[in-house]
Amino acid sequence: MNFLEEKTLTETYHFKGKIINLRVDDVELPDGSTSIREIIEHPGGVCVAALTADGRLPFVRQFRYPYKEVVTELPAGKLERGEDPLDAVKRELAEEVGAHGANWRSMGKLYPSPGYCGEIIHLYACDIDIAGESHPDEGEFLEVEYIALADAVQMALDGKLPDAKTQTLVLKLWAESQQKNH
Amino acid sequence: MNFLEEKTLTETYHFKGKIINLRVDDVELPDGSTSIREIIEHPGGVCVAALTADGRLPFVRQFRYPYKEVVTELPAGKLERGEDPLDAVKRELAEEVGAHGANWRSMGKLYPSPGYCGEIIHLYACDIDIAGESHPDEGEFLEVEYIALADAVQMALDGKLPDAKTQTLVLKLWAESQQKNH
Repeated sequence: MNFLEEKTLTETYHFKGKIINLRVDDVELPDGSTSIREIIEHPGGVCVAALTADGRLPFVRQFRYPYKEVVTELPAGKLERGEDPLDAVKRELAEEVGAHGANWRSMGKLYPSPGYCGEIIHLYACDIDIAGESHPDEGEFLEVEYIALADAVQMALDGKLPDAKTQTLVLKLWAESQQKNH
Repeated sequence: MNFLEEKTLTETYHFKGKIINLRVDDVELPDGSTSIREIIEHPGGVCVAALTADGRLPFVRQFRYPYKEVVTELPAGKLERGEDPLDAVKRELAEEVGAHGANWRSMGKLYPSPGYCGEIIHLYACDIDIAGESHPDEGEFLEVEYIALADAVQMALDGKLPDAKTQTLVLKLWAESQQKNH
């Protein structure tokens, strides 16, 4: 599908931050004309649906500053430099929820907003082996709540889980369980 | 849940672009300490699952520059300034796929990456009334393919639809149809 491809002509950084960088590239389009692309660079993230023996998942409620509202999400976080995604997601589950998982498996990747953002969120599922207390990072404030998978699916359908990774992972886990039952 | 809230102290723009702006805010955390937040502003987007009479959905394949790869997505686009999301999604379906929808309904909202990005993607479903030819914007290069809903669900589970809005909307539409059948 090379006839869709865009070629980089120049890359110019306008911002390098703690978490994100912003770059504006000149590109050559498939018809030979040129345009610009505004690009956010991000180190990548992880997210986990961690199932208890009685079919519930831990969720985290935290204030999401860009929306100025409290959002209910599955445990998640960003990759440290050079960190393996599986190590990162185990760390986040321990920090945010205090739980340790078993039977870890990949649930695929998520591109949050592929028009301008290069972040990749790695999705995982696991079983909760040991539940405990959360130990959030300094400057991180959150509440943990366990919700049954079927109730979380209904919350996603009712618009109560707007976060992209959370909706996707809850619905994927449920779709898998439905397929196994048929 | 005011005990989770972060208060804005200052806002500083570092980039104002064609599509996105980047702002760094000083904030006061719930414990009275201060931190910074790197924020992307975006006008918002729309996405549609448009079902044909025989249960297929039009998808769009296009080169996504941040990932340097061709990504398969449901028809989508960004809001023009002041545009109503429903008008925007009808416009995008006509431009990208050449189809006109009927029985439009909201499928909720999507927050792509709520840690740093303020974009809201408005999700819709409709029935395809009139199919036609795509009329992409100048500088927009894409291919259209119709895929059966059940096959799209399997593609999402197999990791072949990494785009967040696409995975979410396909799985939501399928979950709704499963609930109706039970």
